[in-house]
Amino acid sequence: MSILVVGSVAFDNIQTPSGTVENCLGGAATHFSLAASYFTDVRVIGVVGKDFTAEHEAVFTRRGIDTEGIERADGLSFHWTGSYVNNLNEAQTLGTDLNVFQTFDPKIPESCKDSEYLFLANIDPVLQARVRSQMPKVRMVCGDTMNYWIADHATNLAKVLRELDVLLINDGEARMLAGDRNLVMAANKILSMGPKTLIVKHGEYGATSFFGERSFDNARALHPFRAPALPLAEVVDPTGAGDSFAGGFYGYLASQPELTPAVFRTAMFYGGVMGSFAVERFGTERLQNVTREEIDERFKLFKEISHLEYANA
Amino acid sequence: MSILVVGSVAFDNIQTPSGTVENCLGGAATHFSLAASYFTDVRVIGVVGKDFTAEHEAVFTRRGIDTEGIERADGLSFHWTGSYVNNLNEAQTLGTDLNVFQTFDPKIPESCKDSEYLFLANIDPVLQARVRSQMPKVRMVCGDTMNYWIADHATNLAKVLRELDVLLINDGEARMLAGDRNLVMAANKILSMGPKTLIVKHGEYGATSFFGERSFDNARALHPFRAPALPLAEVVDPTGAGDSFAGGFYGYLASQPELTPAVFRTAMFYGGVMGSFAVERFGTERLQNVTREEIDERFKLFKEISHLEYANA
Repeated sequence: MSILVVGSVAFDNIQTPSGTVENCLGGAATHFSLAASYFTDVRVIGVVGKDFTAEHEAVFTRRGIDTEGIERADGLSFHWTGSYVNNLNEAQTLGTDLNVFQTFDPKIPESCKDSEYLFLANIDPVLQARVRSQMPKVRMVCGDTMNYWIADHATNLAKVLRELDVLLINDGEARMLAGDRNLVMAANKILSMGPKTLIVKHGEYGATSFFGERSFDNARALHPFRAPALPLAEVVDPTGAGDSFAGGFYGYLASQPELTPAVFRTAMFYGGVMGSFAVERFGTERLQNVTREEIDERFKLFKEISHLEYANA
Repeated sequence: MSILVVGSVAFDNIQTPSGTVENCLGGAATHFSLAASYFTDVRVIGVVGKDFTAEHEAVFTRRGIDTEGIERADGLSFHWTGSYVNNLNEAQTLGTDLNVFQTFDPKIPESCKDSEYLFLANIDPVLQARVRSQMPKVRMVCGDTMNYWIADHATNLAKVLRELDVLLINDGEARMLAGDRNLVMAANKILSMGPKTLIVKHGEYGATSFFGERSFDNARALHPFRAPALPLAEVVDPTGAGDSFAGGFYGYLASQPELTPAVFRTAMFYGGVMGSFAVERFGTERLQNVTREEIDERFKLFKEISHLEYANA
C-alpha cells in the first residue's frame, strides 16, 4: 500500500570528519522516501525552488517515487548547513535558510488522496495537522518532530500527537517532550498524549518501541522492543539516518497486509538496516543505489548481531 | 567450575533520586560474586577492616560464596561515597577512603588455587597482575578497569591487558583506552592490545561484544553481538550494575562445559539480567534475595524484548 510523506526536500552543506559536501540533495522527505521506496510505493508532498532540477527529480523517479506533490515555487529551496566535525552523534546547525519553505502550504494532489499510510516528517506541527486533516480516511499516521517544536510550539504539537498511530523521535526529544529523564516513564507520559505507539531512536545504540494498549487491534500492551543498530567502523555522514530509519520502518509496515507485533518488530529491524546504509555515504548517495539483495543481507546481519540462536553459533 | 574474583569489598554511602543509604555493603567483588553465585561456585579475594562483621560475611556465605580469601586487617574497610542525584547514568564520587585497601597485597589461599576462572575486578593493575601470576593454570581470565587506571597507570594496565581473555569496560573507558571515538575502531585497537574478546557496556542501552580471531577455539572472528538492557521505570541505585553484569556473564560462562559463540551470547544476556536486578534496590539487597526462577523468567523477558520471533507475536 502506498505512503504519502510530507516534509522537507532540501539542499545541504555538510561537514563531517570524512569530508565536506555542498548543495547535496537532502531533506527529511527525501531520505524517508528513498528508504521507503525499497518496500512500497511512495508519494512526496513538499516544496522546492528553481535550484531543484530534472536531475534532482530523477533521484526520486528512478526509485519510482511519485513527485506530483512536489510544488515548484519561485526562489531557492530550503537549505541547511551543518557540521558533525566535533560530534558525529549530534549535528551542529551552522545555518538554516528556509527560502521557499517559509510560505509552504502543503496541497495534496487528488491522485495522492487514496494513500493509506501517512508520514508527517519533521516540519511545523501546524503544517502536519493541515496535511492530516486532508487525509481523513488514512489507515495509519506516523510522525516525527524535534526539540524546536517541542519547546516553542507545544500546543500545536499536542494536536498532532493526538492523531498519531506512531511517534518516532530520539532520546533527547522523548525526555524533553515528557519532562522526564527516565525513558520508561517518559514513554508512558508520551503514550498518554495520543500516540498509540512510540519509537525512541538511540543513534548508534539502536531504537526502542513502547507499546500502549491501543498499539494493536487486540488492545493488549506489550513489553518494549529493542532493535539494534549496526556497529560501523566509519560513519561518513549521519544526516538523514533517523529519516532513513523511519522510511525503512514505515515502508516495511505499509508493505504488509496486517499490523501485528511480529510485523512491527521486523519493521524496526528494517528501519535500522536503512539507517545503517544511509550513513555509509554523504547525503542520499547510498540510499539511491542500495539493492534489495543488500537490504535482505543486512537484515540477516541485524538478526545475527542480536539473536541468541544464530546459524554459525 | 569455580570462579576466583579479586576486588573491593567495601561500604558505600549512596545518594540517588530514590533516597540515601549509609554504610551499605558494596564493592566490585561483592556485587560480582553475589551475581555469579546463582550460576557457579565463587571464591573472593579481598581485604576488609574491623567494621566487616559476621552479619556482612553471612551475605556471602548464605549464597555459598567462599570467603576464606577475604583478609581481615586492622583499621576500617574501603569506603566510597557517591551520588547519582544529578545523573543516574554516572556516579559522582564524593569521597573515597581506601583505608585497609591502601596496603592490600592479595594472597590466594591454597584451597582457591584450583579455580579455573579468574575475574580481576577494577583495582590497581599492579594487584591484578600479581593475582594473575599466582594463577598460572587458570582456564580463563576476565577483567575490568576504569578511567583512573587508563589515564595514569597505562604501562601497568597494558601488562594486564595482554593476559586477558575478556575485557569488560564501558563506552567511555573503551573510547579513552583506544583514543578513538568510533566504537568499532576503538574495539579493534583494544583487541590488538591483548584481550581476545571485548565487552563494552552501554548502561541503559545494553552491551556489545567484539570478537577477535582468538575469541573462540576455531580461531574465527565473528560480527559484534549486541545484548539489550531492560527498560526500567525506576532505577533505585545504579551502584554495582556493571559488576553485577560481569557476575551474571562470567558466572554463566563458568557453568558451561565449553566456550562457544552461543554460550557467550547467552552469558551476555544473563549479564544484562543480573544488572537489571541489581539496580532495583539499594546496594546488594536485590542480588541477595533474587531466585533462580526470577532470573530465568527475566532471561525470557530479555529474549522477548530483543528477538523477532516471540511466542505471543
